Amino acid sequence: MDYEAQLDAALSRLHEEGRYRTFIDIERQKGQYPKAVWRRPDGTQKDITVWCGNDYLGMGQHPAVLGAMHEALESTGAGSGGTRNISGTTIYHKALEAELADLHRKEAALVFTSAYIANDATLSTLPKLFPGLIIYSDELNHASMIEGIRRNGGAKRVFRHNDLAHLRELLEADDPAAPKLIAFESVYSMDGDICPMEAICDLAREFGALTYLDEVHAVGMYGPRGGGVAEKLGLMGRIDIINATLAKAYGVMGGYIAATAKMVDAIRSYAPGFIFTTSIPPAVAAGAAASVRHLKTDQSLRDKQQEHARVLKTRLKALGLPIIDHGTHIVPVHVGHPVHCKKISDMLLQDYGIYVQPINFPTVPRGTERLRFTPSPVHSMDDIDRLVRAMDKLWSHCALNRAELTA
Amino acid sequence: MDYEAQLDAALSRLHEEGRYRTFIDIERQKGQYPKAVWRRPDGTQKDITVWCGNDYLGMGQHPAVLGAMHEALESTGAGSGGTRNISGTTIYHKALEAELADLHRKEAALVFTSAYIANDATLSTLPKLFPGLIIYSDELNHASMIEGIRRNGGAKRVFRHNDLAHLRELLEADDPAAPKLIAFESVYSMDGDICPMEAICDLAREFGALTYLDEVHAVGMYGPRGGGVAEKLGLMGRIDIINATLAKAYGVMGGYIAATAKMVDAIRSYAPGFIFTTSIPPAVAAGAAASVRHLKTDQSLRDKQQEHARVLKTRLKALGLPIIDHGTHIVPVHVGHPVHCKKISDMLLQDYGIYVQPINFPTVPRGTERLRFTPSPVHSMDDIDRLVRAMDKLWSHCALNRAELTA
Ligand SMILES: Cc1ncc(COP(=O)(O)O)c(C=O)c1O
Ligand SMILES: Cc1ncc(COP(=O)(O)O)c(C=O)c1O
Repeated sequence: MDYEAQLDAALSRLHEEGRYRTFIDIERQKGQYPKAVWRRPDGTQKDITVWCGNDYLGMGQHPAVLGAMHEALESTGAGSGGTRNISGTTIYHKALEAELADLHRKEAALVFTSAYIANDATLSTLPKLFPGLIIYSDELNHASMIEGIRRNGGAKRVFRHNDLAHLRELLEADDPAAPKLIAFESVYSMDGDICPMEAICDLAREFGALTYLDEVHAVGMYGPRGGGVAEKLGLMGRIDIINATLAKAYGVMGGYIAATAKMVDAIRSYAPGFIFTTSIPPAVAAGAAASVRHLKTDQSLRDKQQEHARVLKTRLKALGLPIIDHGTHIVPVHVGHPVHCKKISDMLLQDYGIYVQPINFPTVPRGTERLRFTPSPVHSMDDIDRLVRAMDKLWSHCALNRAELTA
Repeated sequence: MDYEAQLDAALSRLHEEGRYRTFIDIERQKGQYPKAVWRRPDGTQKDITVWCGNDYLGMGQHPAVLGAMHEALESTGAGSGGTRNISGTTIYHKALEAELADLHRKEAALVFTSAYIANDATLSTLPKLFPGLIIYSDELNHASMIEGIRRNGGAKRVFRHNDLAHLRELLEADDPAAPKLIAFESVYSMDGDICPMEAICDLAREFGALTYLDEVHAVGMYGPRGGGVAEKLGLMGRIDIINATLAKAYGVMGGYIAATAKMVDAIRSYAPGFIFTTSIPPAVAAGAAASVRHLKTDQSLRDKQQEHARVLKTRLKALGLPIIDHGTHIVPVHVGHPVHCKKISDMLLQDYGIYVQPINFPTVPRGTERLRFTPSPVHSMDDIDRLVRAMDKLWSHCALNRAELTA
C-alpha cells in the first residue's frame, strides 16, 4: 500500500477543484474587534476588519464575559479536570445549564463541548431511546446534524429545504405508529433564511413527531431575551429539543440542548459524546453564562445588529450586487464560482484590509459559492461604507454580473 | 407514540442496574487542588480531597498556564469567533500546533475541540482517504475511537486486549494488498496497563499497516519531554498518527493529532468534525501551549507523580486490597459490583471527605466495577495516609474480601 500516494491524490482533488482551504491567520485585539491583525505566511502583518466572524454581537470582548472568565480562572483554575461524571461537574457547569434552561423556558439543559457534538451526540442517541425512530431531516441541515443522524444507521428521510409539502408527503408514507422526529434549523446560516417553524410544529403534532431545532445562528440575536427564533415566534413550548451554541452570538465556546428534564436525563445518561469527554473549562462556562445572562436584557445589541445588516444589504442591493436577503443578520453575496469567489476574497484582504472568507463546496452546494458578510453592532457605519465601496470596485474590476444579469 | 414512557423505560433500566449516574458538584480552589468543596444537592458544603481527577499533574492551577490564559483573554478576548477556516485561526492556534508537532517530533499537528472528537473525526475520515481501509482495533479502546471506527461502516477487526497473536491472526486473514490501520492506546486508563508498543509496530511493518496511537493518558507524564509512552520507548517515529488530549495532564481542554504534514493536511481538509465547528478559544490554546511547553522540561512533576503512585499502591497492597498494578500512575481498586462500588464511594465522600467516583458499566465491563484513584504530585503524603486509613476501615466495614480471597 502506498499511503502517501493516496494522500497526494486526496489533496490534489481539492487543489484541482479550487477548494483547497488555506487558513487565514488573524489576531483579534480585545476592545478593537472587528479590527484585527492579519499575519501573512511570510510573517508580515496588516490591519484588517473581520467581516465573516460568527461572534455576531461582539460578546467575545464584552467586559461582563471577560470579567467572569478572569474571575473563574482565578478562583478555580484552568480545566475542569474530568468528564462530567468523574470530577468534572462544577457549580459553573450547573449555573450555565440553569441559565440555558431558563432562556428556553425548558425544565433542563445539557452542555456539551460544542454545538457540533451536541447535535451529533443527541441525534445519534435518540434512536437508542426510541427504537425504530424515523428522522425527517431538512436537506440543508448542518453537517453536525447529518453526521448524528447517519451515525447509527437509523431510518432517515431527507425533505427538500423548508418544503412543507414534501415533508408531509414523507410523513404520510410512513407507519403512523412509528416514533418520528423532525430535525431542522431556525436560521440557515449560509443563506440566512428562516424555516416555517409553526407549520413544521403543526405537522409534527398531526403526525405525532418530536421536533428538534438547531438555533445555533439565532440564540442571543432573536427573541426578546435572545431565546432564538422560537422565542420570537412564541413557539419554544412546541419544540421538544432545542440545540444551540455558546460560540457564536454568545462569543465563547460550547454547545447545548434544552428539553424536558427526562429527555435531558436520558441523553445525559446514554450519549457517548457527552459521557466520555472532559467537560468545558469552568472559566468557559462562567463566560458563557455571563453572556447568556447579559443578552437576556440587552436588546440594544440585537437592534443595532439588525440595523447594520439592513444598511449593508440596502447599499449592496443599490449597487446591483446579487444579495441573498431573507431579512436576517446574514448577508450572503452570490458569486457562483469557487475560483472567482476566492479571488475576490483575496483582493478584499490584500488591497482593502477586508477579511471575508470565500464559502465554497462542501459548505455550500457547488455553483452557489459566495461571500458571506456578518455585520455586527461593533462594525461602524464607516466600516460598512468602506466595505461597500470596495465591493463596488472589485465587482466591476472582475467584470462580474450585476444582479440584473445574474438573476 | 408515547415518547415519555420510552424515556421512563430507558431511565429505569439504569436505576435497576444500579448504574444511574448522579454528578457530584464540586468546586476546585485554585492553588489548593486536590482540595475542593463539595456542594450537596441540599446546598450545604463539605471540604473534600479529589482522588479521581484527570488533571494528573495539577497543571490546571499552574501559574504558567493561568498566566498565559489571563494574558490571551486580555489581549484577544473570549472566543475565537469562527471555525478554523472562517476567521477562527489565530496565532494562538498556530503556536499550539507548532508546540505539539515539536513535542512528538512530527511535521505537523492539528488541534480539535477535544481528544474525543479528534479520535472520532480522524478515525472516521481515514477510510475516505484510503478506500477499503481495514481498521484493527484493540477491544478495550476508548469509546471515542470505537465511535469513529464504526461511524462510516468501514471494515473493522477487533483484537483481544493487547493480544499480539490475535492481532497477527487477524492481519494474516486479510488481503495483503488492502490498506490497514492498527488503532490502540498506550496507557489504558481504567486498568492503567500499557500496550506492547514495539511489537505492534513490528506487526504493522510486517503487514504494511499504519499505526494510530491514543496517548491521552500518557502525554505530559511519560517520556523525557512528556511526549508519552512512545517517546519513553523511542518509538514516536514508528507511530503514524498520535492522538492525545490537552485536558488531562496538561490541565486545560482540547485534543489533537500529530503526524506527517500530508496526513494532517488531509484530515484538516476532509474531517467534518474538524471543519464544521468553532475552534477552541485563544485563551484555551494559550494555556495548553504553556502547559505543553512547561512539561517539556519539568521532570520533577513526573517523578513526584510516579513516586506518589508507588507509595499509594504499596500501602494499599500491604492491606491486602485488590489493586490492579501495571506500574503506571493509575491506581484501580477492584470492587466487582456496581452497588458496592457506589456505596464505598458514597461513604468515602460523606464520612471521610474523599472523592472518588465509582467506575461502573459501560465505562468498564460489568463485574469489573472499581474505584480508580489518580495520585498526583499535588497530593501530599498526608492525603495518601488519610486515604489508605479510610479504605482500610471501609473495606472491613463492608466485609469485602481482601486480595487473598478475591484473587
Ligand atoms: C483513552 C481516551 N481517549 C480519548 C479521551 C477523550 O479525551 P477528551 O477528554 O479530550 O475528549 C479519553 C477521555 O476523556 C480517553 O480516556
Ligand atoms: C447550524 C449549525 N449547527 C451547529 C454548528 C456547530 O456549532 P459549534 O461551533 O458550537 O460546534 C454550526 C457551526 O459551527 C452551525 O452552523
